[in-house]
Amino acid sequence: MDNQLPIGSTIGILGGGQLGRMLSLAASRLGMNTHIFEPNINSPAGRVSQHVTTASYDDVEALQAFGQAVDVITYEFENIPTSALDILENMSTIYPGRGALAISQDRLAEKNFLNSLGLQTAPFANVENDKEAVSAIASIGTPSILKTRRMGYDGKGQVKITKPTQIHTAWNTMQGSASILEGFIDFNQEVSVIAARSVDGEVSCYDPSENVHHDGILHTTKVPSSLSTPQRVDAALLAGKILNALQYVGVMGVELFVTPNGLVVNEIAPRVHNSGHWTQNGCDICQFEQHIRAIAGWPLGDGSRHTDITMENLIGEDINRIPELCKSSAALHIYGKEEIKPGRKMGHVNKRN
Amino acid sequence: MDNQLPIGSTIGILGGGQLGRMLSLAASRLGMNTHIFEPNINSPAGRVSQHVTTASYDDVEALQAFGQAVDVITYEFENIPTSALDILENMSTIYPGRGALAISQDRLAEKNFLNSLGLQTAPFANVENDKEAVSAIASIGTPSILKTRRMGYDGKGQVKITKPTQIHTAWNTMQGSASILEGFIDFNQEVSVIAARSVDGEVSCYDPSENVHHDGILHTTKVPSSLSTPQRVDAALLAGKILNALQYVGVMGVELFVTPNGLVVNEIAPRVHNSGHWTQNGCDICQFEQHIRAIAGWPLGDGSRHTDITMENLIGEDINRIPELCKSSAALHIYGKEEIKPGRKMGHVNKRN
Repeated sequence: MDNQLPIGSTIGILGGGQLGRMLSLAASRLGMNTHIFEPNINSPAGRVSQHVTTASYDDVEALQAFGQAVDVITYEFENIPTSALDILENMSTIYPGRGALAISQDRLAEKNFLNSLGLQTAPFANVENDKEAVSAIASIGTPSILKTRRMGYDGKGQVKITKPTQIHTAWNTMQGSASILEGFIDFNQEVSVIAARSVDGEVSCYDPSENVHHDGILHTTKVPSSLSTPQRVDAALLAGKILNALQYVGVMGVELFVTPNGLVVNEIAPRVHNSGHWTQNGCDICQFEQHIRAIAGWPLGDGSRHTDITMENLIGEDINRIPELCKSSAALHIYGKEEIKPGRKMGHVNKRN
Repeated sequence: MDNQLPIGSTIGILGGGQLGRMLSLAASRLGMNTHIFEPNINSPAGRVSQHVTTASYDDVEALQAFGQAVDVITYEFENIPTSALDILENMSTIYPGRGALAISQDRLAEKNFLNSLGLQTAPFANVENDKEAVSAIASIGTPSILKTRRMGYDGKGQVKITKPTQIHTAWNTMQGSASILEGFIDFNQEVSVIAARSVDGEVSCYDPSENVHHDGILHTTKVPSSLSTPQRVDAALLAGKILNALQYVGVMGVELFVTPNGLVVNEIAPRVHNSGHWTQNGCDICQFEQHIRAIAGWPLGDGSRHTDITMENLIGEDINRIPELCKSSAALHIYGKEEIKPGRKMGHVNKRN
């Protein structure tokens, strides 16, 4: 492979949170250097990386210097300003590519793309004004959920609607942001597939995991899931279809609802994903290393599961359980965030089932 | 446990090589910060750590500032100057303690200590002058090996003796350094036990591994070893005896010869050990994390083996095999050293057996 980055190359990572941190630790294992671009000082990722640029995403000079200093660029979150990407793409390769980013930044584009592949999504309607809000509730009905098309995560920017008349209040809370109204899916389980695709087009999927959310935030992920063997195959094929259609390079998280009518795609995330953290203790090559391998032009590693794992997120004050948790046989992964806030992901534990 | 360091504490590590690097990566997983003390710039460990002091081990001010900045001190090599330890021990706890360091810094003290516990070592005689050299060869015979008592590693400072008359040339090459003459051990296998002891006195051993050396440098480590079950138990009990006698805190490498007359201790190393690198892919909690847990006053983690592994060191030009090796299913661990030198450890791979 001619485009294989040699060891000692520098991986540029946009975002200095926990995903950037774990990407950086994995890159270090492979003998790579990392360079974090992050607006906040003393970030979780910055503290374990050789180079850090502390600047905002509209700092053109800082972006240019960063782009010139690195051998490939990746990111830990999908809501990167388009203007920053415009600058960076002239200086280095960005993986995963902008097509995947554009789709995942906009819930409407995402759903249209998925439907165009023949994949099921929740029924949805675009809402950009009062009139569309009214016609959306008429077509989608209740229960349903109004979501901003952009910049939502962990349940933020979402309003649940149980009666048609609530659409007006819901739409007002969006403050004019383009939104979509999604019909509720009656699902048995939420699962996700963490899939990877190499520069050469090789695709590899981790075993699908079963997820439990609390208050819109992932609480636990368990492998193996209770999916049947045909369902697991379906999930992997579906993920492969998405990655291939996008000529994707890197790791993607694909969230699915398991329904009586088959698998419905909830959301895709063009990055390493919280529901893939179990791979750190369930597989030889975790999702973070797999992502680094992919974007470095390396072949994918062995992602087969050697251990059954339940991952539990440590949210906010949960981090105070560490003195007890370290007495258990669980593997701890702590993000080094200095301030505890409600809803903030502080770490996670991987326990053998 | 009252003396349990909280997450966010700073682990001070003397030495910035690959062992320091992997200790630092493990500490980061646990939400700890690390501070590397290392004379050379741009060291493998320094590049993945939040704080680095670049200074020599006789820089009193730098040692004092380092000692004040960290919450506990550990090290990646045993040949730390006593004068540096004298300064540091006034400022912070040093784990493993100085008793273990003093013993492992001097082959004579080490063998006397091991014999005092009733453990077998190679027959040996102290050699500090011509007269002792002659009487040593008379008592130990040939084949034997003259070794400097201090500062030897990876087969350095050693001369093999096959005829008694060679003792004179051998002793001359030592340039007056106090040495010991060791009788050759007729062994079936070389194994090692990586053992850990917590502040509370809990002891845990990893499964003994079988080692193959080339030119005095570890080449491969394999688990499980071909030891019988009683031999494995013996090896673990023997290691526990050593750690308890020293009231040891941290991970220790115990190298053993398997002989028809039982287990003979070759050498102990008061630190994480090359023959324990397999634990990174064979166990949930690797030796590096186990060491950090121990010196942080945490309970030990689960060190049971979930996968059979063969670790192979990548020495010197071996690192050029990476473009091929990354196509295999092996897990790679690369140290980020910029210059390739013959005999230099550049990385290692862990393959499933």
